[in-house]
Amino acid sequence: MKKTVKLLFVVAGIGVVASAAAQFAKPDDAVKYRQSAMFLMGQNAGRINAQLKTDKPNVQVIQTSAALIETLSKVPYEAFLPGTDLVANTKAKPEIFKDTARFNQLAESMQGEVVKLNAAAKGGDVSTIRTAFGGVGKACKACHDDFKDK
Amino acid sequence: MKKTVKLLFVVAGIGVVASAAAQFAKPDDAVKYRQSAMFLMGQNAGRINAQLKTDKPNVQVIQTSAALIETLSKVPYEAFLPGTDLVANTKAKPEIFKDTARFNQLAESMQGEVVKLNAAAKGGDVSTIRTAFGGVGKACKACHDDFKDK
Repeated sequence: MKKTVKLLFVVAGIGVVASAAAQFAKPDDAVKYRQSAMFLMGQNAGRINAQLKTDKPNVQVIQTSAALIETLSKVPYEAFLPGTDLVANTKAKPEIFKDTARFNQLAESMQGEVVKLNAAAKGGDVSTIRTAFGGVGKACKACHDDFKDK
Repeated sequence: MKKTVKLLFVVAGIGVVASAAAQFAKPDDAVKYRQSAMFLMGQNAGRINAQLKTDKPNVQVIQTSAALIETLSKVPYEAFLPGTDLVANTKAKPEIFKDTARFNQLAESMQGEVVKLNAAAKGGDVSTIRTAFGGVGKACKACHDDFKDK
C-alpha cells in the first residue's frame, strides 16, 4: 500500500501538479499539511461560533479568528494531490480526484464566504457577522458532505 | 493519565490562562493546535530553504511562505497550557511551564526574526533573505533545544 501511494505521488509529480507535489517530501506530509490547516480553521470557526452564542460576542476574538481563517483558507488545496487519498489517516474521498472541477468550485466558494466573514468581522456588526458565518458553515458542509469521509 | 491531564487542564482554566484554556475543548485539541501551526511553519521554512539552495531562488515562493510563517508564528503559544505536556504525542517538555519566562522570551525572539524574514522576502534581495532566514533557523533551534523532546 505504502509503495503504491509513493508511486502515484511520484507519477502525479510529473504532471500538472509538479510544482505542488515538489512542495512535499512524502504523501504523509501533504495529508498532514492540509489537515493542519483545516484543523486550525475548524478550531477558529468554533471560537467564532462560541462567541456568537453568547449575549455579548467579543468582536475582537471574532476578528482574530476570521482573519486567520481567511489566510488559512488558501493553504490546504495544493496538498490535495492525486494518490494522497490512499494514505492512512486521511478522510479525503477519492472523488476529489474524479470530480476535481466540482471540488475546486466548492473550495473557491468557501474561500469567497470566508472573505465575506472577515470583512463582516472587521465591520464589527454582530448581525452581519452571524449571516456571513452561516455562509461559511454552509460552504464547509457542502464540500465535506461530498468529499470527506465521516 | 487521561484523567490527570483533564484535571490539570481544568484547574489551569481557573487561573491566569482562563480565556486561553476556554479556547480548547480538551487538552488534545491544544496539542493538535500548536502542532498544526508548527508543522505548517516547518513545511514553509523547508520551502524557503529549498529555494535558497537553488541557483535562482523563486522569490515569489519565498514571499508566500514567509508571509504565512509570520502569521502562524503568533498562533501556537496560547496552546501551551499547563498540563498539556502530559498528553500523549506531545514533544513539549515540562520545562515550558517551569521556566515560562525564558520560553516566552524565545518565542518572542522567533517572532521577531520571522518579521525580519517577511520584510526581507518582500524586499526581494536573496542575500538579505538568506541572512534573515538564518536568524529564524537559529531562533527555532534555540527553543527546540531547551523545550522540545527529540
